[in-house]
Amino acid sequence: MEHKQFIEELQKRLGMSRKDVDGLLSDTLQIIKERSVVMDSFAIQGFGTFEPRKRAERVSVNPATGKRMLIPPKIVLTFKPGTLIKNKLKESTDNEQ
Amino acid sequence: MEHKQFIEELQKRLGMSRKDVDGLLSDTLQIIKERSVVMDSFAIQGFGTFEPRKRAERVSVNPATGKRMLIPPKIVLTFKPGTLIKNKLKESTDNEQ
Repeated sequence: MEHKQFIEELQKRLGMSRKDVDGLLSDTLQIIKERSVVMDSFAIQGFGTFEPRKRAERVSVNPATGKRMLIPPKIVLTFKPGTLIKNKLKESTDNEQ
Repeated sequence: MEHKQFIEELQKRLGMSRKDVDGLLSDTLQIIKERSVVMDSFAIQGFGTFEPRKRAERVSVNPATGKRMLIPPKIVLTFKPGTLIKNKLKESTDNEQ
């Protein structure tokens, strides 16, 4: 499902204008970005936890040339699905069998 | 940041009631769950992509007892941060150095 369909679906369910839904979504994402940048993890009940993790600096070797490169440290945003969504996905696999 | 603080922050920014924000969030998550269960990946512009992935059935060995166990197939929800959020996180690591 692409972004555009998602907005339309939200509009339908919430009975809100496109502008309101866009504003709402960008505010939500803005809060998550702000928290991630200060390394604060972020729990959304019934869904999961967004957790910024620091990847340390490391040496990597180019397999083609054998040249060694230093990869700088970086922060990656990880997502851990919550139990509710895990169970929902489990149900759907069980129904398939 | 816990769920409760997130809701309060959203209320403040959007000037919406608690009930509206709760409704909005649960509708958003509901859509993501519905799409994940039918193995449809889900792109949110400026944030990232939620992608359900099938983990095949596999044999696992209990290190303590050496007993072999069959782990059933399952669907896991993965998240791939988009470029916008990666760059934002990169900026924050660069500012630290």
